[in-house]
Order: sequence, then structure tokens, then C-alpha cells
Amino acid sequence: MDSLILKNITVVLNEPRYPENIGAAARCCMNMGLGGGIYAVRPQMPYREKMLKMATHEAASIIEEMRVFDNLKDALRQFGYVLGTSARTGKKRLPTHTPRQAAARICEAAAENRVALLFGSEKWGLQNSDLELCHGLVTIPTAGFSSINLAQSVMILAYEIHIAASAPPERFMPKLATTHELEGMYAHISELFDAAGFVKREDPGYWLSNVRRFLASYPLKARDARMIRGFCRQLLHVLNTQGREG
Amino acid sequence: MDSLILKNITVVLNEPRYPENIGAAARCCMNMGLGGGIYAVRPQMPYREKMLKMATHEAASIIEEMRVFDNLKDALRQFGYVLGTSARTGKKRLPTHTPRQAAARICEAAAENRVALLFGSEKWGLQNSDLELCHGLVTIPTAGFSSINLAQSVMILAYEIHIAASAPPERFMPKLATTHELEGMYAHISELFDAAGFVKREDPGYWLSNVRRFLASYPLKARDARMIRGFCRQLLHVLNTQGREG
Repeated sequence: MDSLILKNITVVLNEPRYPENIGAAARCCMNMGLGGGIYAVRPQMPYREKMLKMATHEAASIIEEMRVFDNLKDALRQFGYVLGTSARTGKKRLPTHTPRQAAARICEAAAENRVALLFGSEKWGLQNSDLELCHGLVTIPTAGFSSINLAQSVMILAYEIHIAASAPPERFMPKLATTHELEGMYAHISELFDAAGFVKREDPGYWLSNVRRFLASYPLKARDARMIRGFCRQLLHVLNTQGREG
Repeated sequence: MDSLILKNITVVLNEPRYPENIGAAARCCMNMGLGGGIYAVRPQMPYREKMLKMATHEAASIIEEMRVFDNLKDALRQFGYVLGTSARTGKKRLPTHTPRQAAARICEAAAENRVALLFGSEKWGLQNSDLELCHGLVTIPTAGFSSINLAQSVMILAYEIHIAASAPPERFMPKLATTHELEGMYAHISELFDAAGFVKREDPGYWLSNVRRFLASYPLKARDARMIRGFCRQLLHVLNTQGREG
């Protein structure tokens, strides 16, 4: 088992509702050796006692060291590869993997990058705005009843990652752009689209969503993001100069 | 997914302590399509409300139809293939599989047999006397902390079985002897050992345990069990006749 890889993998819980599930997720991390800790975004009822009971003594440190954030973008800013979990079968705009496929990709990515496993709230799962921050999706195969308990979903992913990390990876992903770097790039692209009048009137976010979807499926390195921003900067310069001249 | 196979797979919980875990196990069965229901042996605190809350509405029927037994042998009597789960690494007397290997075997067996996935209590796991009723063991790989929550263990097995059942099995196990038929056979063998004076004074169960271990690794058909009993009967007849003559 490659604990250096596993140390780079963090479980990010977006708006978890039940402290028991946070505790149980901590226990999963300890069982399977995921060492990047738990980040919780706007957890509801973070009752320490209930969390600790489900975490058990062995995983209490994960709860003690859990980081809490006010919004998902902040929680994800240091991560180079973000994988969201979703039970939805429709409207999937991102490359979708089985847990086994995802685990192989995660281990490739985690050799050189911090990886976030992102889980939505027990009630709603991940929303479209959350999915925009992901590089890919993982869907756990089920029989008819597809609603899996949050901590159970964490366990299935953690289990597959543990197994994948026990085998030497066949290839490595290079150092990827962090979410923070990507969001800066998208802001730059958005600025360019506005300046270029590249806006669909009935759906102003349409083109940016399309670009996000396209770029998410190809994990960008930090230097790719810088290159794209340079390109935006240059085009904006030309557009602004033309604007003044025209 | 082959629902005929999945219908033959039952989760057997030996002395579960927490109703939440029984409920969560029911939800796992519903998620992954295991259709053989849940059997509980001497469940502690079987509080209906807590079970149903964790089961969710969709899996409530599994709780309603759950069968409760006073002892494990009775719970297992109709099963042809029994697989126990154990975190222990030492003293393993049975063939031990990973969840993935076990799932393949279970699907082979379940085509023609009722299969029991046996889980021990949260506190103690399965005892040696429970393991004697198993044909094999499955151990979930973990990092340092090997104590996995009961319902999480159920989920990992159910998940692997669901995946294995979705692929067409490469071979089938024939109709196996049930636990009831096997126990009758072992009782007969025990009688023969006693009559033949085949008893280790310092450990009276020694030879029977060895025979159990040997036969468990080779899943017996009902007619194999009948043949062995016929052999015992014949030998007992000879021994008893000799006894009278001598």
C-alpha cells in the first residue's frame, strides 16, 4: 500500500446533515488509510459527541483535525483533482466513472497532486454548481434503490482506493492546476467572453459552462492554466485596444 | 444483473448489538439488490424504530420480514454455502478470500444454492464455533485500523456481489448440501470417532475439527454427505458387531 498516495486524498463533505455520518466517514478513512483528512463545508449539527462515537477512538484524531469551511470553493482551492460522487443518471455533464475506474485515476493523480473526493449532502447530493468544480464524477452501481447512505458511499470509494493503492500504479498524472488556479483561469475566460460579446442572451452562462465541461475532462496542469490566461490577457488587450480605436 | 442469483443471498447477523446496524444492513441489501433477506441471531436491543430509520422507507420491508433465531445453527440450516467475515489475521483455519474473490464464488454458488453471508457481533466478531459452520472466510483488506463498522462490512460485500452478479458467471457450483445436512453428517462422523476410540484425550474435539476444516474447503453436495453418512453407518455397524463379539 502506498501511504504517500493515500496521504494526498481528502474526503470533502458538502453540507453534511448528520454528525454520525461525519464520524463514520472518519472511521472509513482510518480503516482504509486515506490520510488527507476530512473537510466539511457548512456541516449541519456538528455535534462533537455523535461524531466521535461513530468515529471510534481510533479515528477521533480525524474529527479533531477536521477543517470546516463556509463555501465549497474555498474548501477545494488546494486540490489538483476533484472527483464528485453522484447517484444521478441524467444530466451528467462530466466524464463518469465506476468506483473501480475512479480509484485507479485517483491513485494516478494522488502521486503528484492533492485529490478531493467530494460528497454532497444526504438530502440533495451534489448540485450542478458543485459539479462545475469537479474533474469527473463517480457513480456507484446499484440495484433499483440508488440512494446510498453518505458514509457507505465514502466506504465504497475508500475501499476501492485502498485496493488500487496497494497495486503499483501503471502511470502517474503530472502536477495539476489547483481549483484556485482553475477558478482564476475561468474568471479570465469569462471576462474575455463578455468583452468579445460571446454571450447567449437567454442563457448567459452557457458558453462558460461548455468550456468548463470541456476543460474538466482534460485535467489541466498549472502551466496549461497559465498559458490559457496569457491567451485571454492578449485577446483582452487586443479587444480593448480595438474598442478604443473603433 | 442476475436477480435470480441475488435472491439466493441472505445476510445473517450473529448477535448484532445495535439496531442502527441492522437497519443500515437492510438498506445495503436494497441498494445492491440482495434479495434473500436478513436473518438475525439473538439480536440485542432490536428496537424497531431505530432499525427502520436507518433502513429508510425503501428497505422497511426487509426489516418487517427479518427472521430472528435463537441459535446460529438453526439460522443456517437451509444454506448450501456459508461465508463468514473476519478481520482476524491469525488462526485462520478456512480458505480465506478477498471480498472480490468471495463475490465471484458466491455468485457461482448462488446460481443453485442458498448462500449465507455471515457477520459476527460488533464487539467480538465471529467465534471459532461460528467459523466451524462456514465454508470459507472473507477478510476485507484495511490499513492499520482493521475494525470496520458492521454495516460497512455488509456494504462492501454487497457491493462486490452486485458487481460480480452483473457479469455473467464463468461457472456454476452444483447444488450443495445444506448446513442442516452437513451437521447431521458431522454428528454421524463424531459418533463413529467415539465408537472407534479415535479421540485425542487432551483435546476431544481435535479430530472432528480437522475433518470439518478439510471438508469445508471442498463444498459438499447433498449426495456426498449422504455417501459419507452411509460409510459411517456401515463402519458403526461393524464396530458395534465386533464389540458384541469381542
